[in-house]
Order: sequence, then C-alpha cells, then structure tokens
Amino acid sequence: MSILTVGTVAFDTIETPYGKVERVVGGASLYASWAATFFAKDVYMISIIGDDFPNEELAKLEARGAITSGIERVSGGKSFFWSGKYLDDMISRETLVTDLNVLADFNPVIPAEAKSPDYVLLGNLTPAVQASVLDQLENKPKLVVLDTMNFWIDIARAELDAVIARVDLLTINDEEARMLSGEQSLMKSAKIIMDMGPKYLIIKKGEHGAMLFHKDEIFYVPAMPIPDVIDPTGAGDTFAGGMLGYIASQDKVDFETLKSAIVYGSATASYCVEDFSNEKLKQLAKEEILERVQKFKKLVDFSL
Amino acid sequence: MSILTVGTVAFDTIETPYGKVERVVGGASLYASWAATFFAKDVYMISIIGDDFPNEELAKLEARGAITSGIERVSGGKSFFWSGKYLDDMISRETLVTDLNVLADFNPVIPAEAKSPDYVLLGNLTPAVQASVLDQLENKPKLVVLDTMNFWIDIARAELDAVIARVDLLTINDEEARMLSGEQSLMKSAKIIMDMGPKYLIIKKGEHGAMLFHKDEIFYVPAMPIPDVIDPTGAGDTFAGGMLGYIASQDKVDFETLKSAIVYGSATASYCVEDFSNEKLKQLAKEEILERVQKFKKLVDFSL
Repeated sequence: MSILTVGTVAFDTIETPYGKVERVVGGASLYASWAATFFAKDVYMISIIGDDFPNEELAKLEARGAITSGIERVSGGKSFFWSGKYLDDMISRETLVTDLNVLADFNPVIPAEAKSPDYVLLGNLTPAVQASVLDQLENKPKLVVLDTMNFWIDIARAELDAVIARVDLLTINDEEARMLSGEQSLMKSAKIIMDMGPKYLIIKKGEHGAMLFHKDEIFYVPAMPIPDVIDPTGAGDTFAGGMLGYIASQDKVDFETLKSAIVYGSATASYCVEDFSNEKLKQLAKEEILERVQKFKKLVDFSL
Repeated sequence: MSILTVGTVAFDTIETPYGKVERVVGGASLYASWAATFFAKDVYMISIIGDDFPNEELAKLEARGAITSGIERVSGGKSFFWSGKYLDDMISRETLVTDLNVLADFNPVIPAEAKSPDYVLLGNLTPAVQASVLDQLENKPKLVVLDTMNFWIDIARAELDAVIARVDLLTINDEEARMLSGEQSLMKSAKIIMDMGPKYLIIKKGEHGAMLFHKDEIFYVPAMPIPDVIDPTGAGDTFAGGMLGYIASQDKVDFETLKSAIVYGSATASYCVEDFSNEKLKQLAKEEILERVQKFKKLVDFSL
C-alpha cells in the first residue's frame, strides 16, 4: 500500500540540556517517512530542498523504501532551516531562527505515479499548500492525515478550517485543540473538532501521551517513560509516520486498527527522542519497535 | 482489615469556572475516608476540628463504616479553613485564605483501639505530625502511605526526609517529585526517591493520570476523560483513600495489587471532581466505581 508524505526536508540546529547539534537533517517529511518505512514500502516524499541538502541522506531513505524523486531540488537555493533551544522541561522550546529559504516558494507538484496514494500524511505546512496536494490527487485515499500547529490557527484560520474539513484524521496537541475549539475540556474540544470534518482526532500531549477520539470512543496511549529525552525534535512526525506506516501495513481503517497504530507510532517516537536528529532511528531495528509495543501493553495492564 | 487515615477535616470555600461554594466540608481525611469506605470498613479517622464542624457530616461517615471518635473536637475552636480559586485550566490554583485555626496545635493522640491498624494513610500535614502518628503505633502496619506537598519540601526538608524513610508508599505530584529528587526525568526521580526509603512511589500528574513505580517496574494509569471537571479539590485524597480501601479489601501488598488499586483510586477520584466538595461521592454507588474501572480497561486496551 502506498503512502504519500508531504512536509519539510530540512536542517535543524538544536540545543537541549543534553547538548547541541548544528545543521543536522530534519523536517516533517524526513522523520515521518523514516518512521513509515519500518512498516511499509512505497513511501512517496513530497518536499523541497536546496542544493545544500546531502544526497546521501536521500539515498538512505531510498534504501528503506522511500521514493524521493518528488522532492524538488532548487538549484542555488538553500534548504529550510530551523534553530531552537529546549528548556529544562524538554517541552517548552524557544525558536531562535526560522529561515524559510526554498520553502517560501513551495508549490508542490505531485508526480503522475504518486497521484493515487492509499494513505496520505499532510505534514505541518501552510494550509493552502496542504490543500493543493489534495487537489492534485486522482483517487480518494483510504485515509488522509493532517498535522498542523498553533501558528496556522492564529494566522490562516479560514484556509485551515477548509483543509481540516477535507481530511479523515487530524493530529494536534492539547493546547492547539483548545485553541481550535475554544473549549477547555478536551472531550468537548474533540467533539467540536470532529464536527468540523475529521472522523478521527488525535490529541498529542507530549510526555503525557496521546488520545485518539472517534465518535463517542476514546483511546489513550501514555508516552513510554524513558530515562533521558535527549531531543524531542521530530517526535510528532515520527509518531504520525509510524502510525500511518502501521495502518498501511494492515491496510485497514477502523478504530481498532488506529488504536494499535498509535501505539506503534508512539513506540517509534519513543526511540526518536533518545538521540539528536534521526540518529537513533538510523540504528533502529523493527524488532525493537515491536518489543517496545509489548512494553506499552505491560505499562497499562492491570487485573480487574 | 483496618485503616487509619490522618489528615484534615475542614471547611473549604472554592471557586472554579463552574461556580463558587462557601464553607463546604473538605479535608484530606474526610475525602480519603469517604473513598476508602467504598471498599473497607473500620476506617479510623484521626483529625482535629472546632465545634463549628457539623455533627451530621461525621454521622454520615460513621454510617459508612468510618470511626470518627479519634477526631478531636476543640471546644470554642474553629475548624481548618481553606479558600482557593481554580484558573481556567483547572490545574493552576490560587490560595486565597488558609486559616489553620485548631490545626495549628494539632498533636494527634491515637486512641488505644486504633494503634494497630493494618493500613495507614498519612495525609498532607507537617512531617513532624505525620511522624508522631507512626511513633504511636504498636505494630508495624502492612502498608504506610504518605502524602505531602511542595510546601514541606521547601520549609521542612529534614523532617520530611525522616518520615519518607519510614513509609512504604509515597504519593506526590510530578513537580514535587522533581523538587524532591533534583532531577528532571521522572524515571530518574523515581529511583532517587525510592532510594530514600519507600518501596513504592506514585507520581500523580493530575489530568494526565498517575504512575506507579516499584523497583524497575512502572505502571501507568491515565485520568478518566470526563466532559466537565467541576472542582478538583480532594481528588488526590480521594484517589489515595480509594486506593488504600481497595488494598485493604484485597489484604495484599504487591505490585499487581497496587496496580489494580490505583485504577480503583482513579475511578473513585474521577467521580469526586464531577461536583463540588464530596457531593458526588455522597450519591455514588460502589457499582458505578466498578463500571468506571471497566472503562479504564477499555480506554487503554489495544491489539498487538
């Protein structure tokens, strides 16, 4: 089953209490595609880079089953660059630099062979760009997942609402759910947001896990407790990519499958944060993800 | 199996986004004992009140199996009074008034018939008072649970450390765990705190649930999502009381029993917050707690 991921492929300079790394690879599509390829092949990546982006990093993705020919390379351009610093709580972060570079003119063109994906992940981008990807698809995908952030809720609410209405699953964090719904209670927020279009909603709560909503049903997955979160960058994209990869591997879209999928996504993300950039993911075997899924089971298991 | 709870029996004036109540009954021992009596009888209450505290509220506790003869009534004295206001997030709260009143001279004397309890809950009080209760016991209880707060970590650290070293299970929130251990990672905090004495540690995370630590094992229980948290006051004490009541009903102290117990405690607490004071607990049937425990099971259940 084919997957399409749209999002940044970029450089990050990141400082956390555990250290600092300069111009490491990152971006939503990179993390999500890396994670998805643990479970699925045919992961089309749609993105834009400058000619500063290392070919060998794309080659590593290709070797895993990602298809990078849909990544536009702008000759003489520079890749998107983000620099940030995480505070001691590893949740609050300060953005130091955002250089859009080639992303400023990103106008994704989906190659013919990628126009009928089974599963789609629209990473955090301008809502108009996310919509233009949907406009180019030739068949209705089995599941479209949308990620967004507070920034777009603030400055592009109408465009964001329009794209939210077209997707099946929205992933946002708890603060964004409250902003989007104007409601403090997450249960009430979830109802309001699902009424805007998506059949499914995932509310991410960082170190506190994530909640999946569907009609009147709720599923909760905690974050896997790990001794040291080294770098949270990319955790949300890894989560989404792992989740969608698992769904594609099962080729089934229902609440039961999505429940399992968010555990697989969480397990994958729990490794991502154990090192900077995608370093840990590069070392990771699929068996280790399965082991951690078992740990999630044990973490919440109790006798009545 | 007998339980001893030590803590306040008091009046609270509480304002939340849902309304305001004046001088309603509250206090750690009151909430904990109310919760414990869903599961166990012989719940001795040790506390202090003024002659302003309504007899009928004690009579209701007696009717449930609590024994209130160990509550000292100070003639001409006034009961402990707390007034606070919860902000919109229902987590942050502002203390408006704390009148210690009779609590200022609380020097608990355990009646002869209550000196050999099987299970003990030391509610949040001056560590010296908590220690004096342990000093008066004639037999080693099967489990001693200690609750405390940031205030005592700040101003009575040595006395607090001394009482922590004498208990089996400590319950604190995540911020307090970080303060107590000087460590940001909760997993590392847990190790440091268990090295201080307690075999078991519960880290409460409010709307994000709670974690139980024992040696290298961790159990996670989410908070039950409910549409409207009306008043969080007493939730922590209700949680602890429900948990200890369940443990007493099983009369077994091991990790498996404690896992189930914190789900029963969470289920009881999830009702507590649905109304002001202990109003909801007063209406609650044990069957409803069991129903909610089933809901917890469903909330975290997934297929591998």
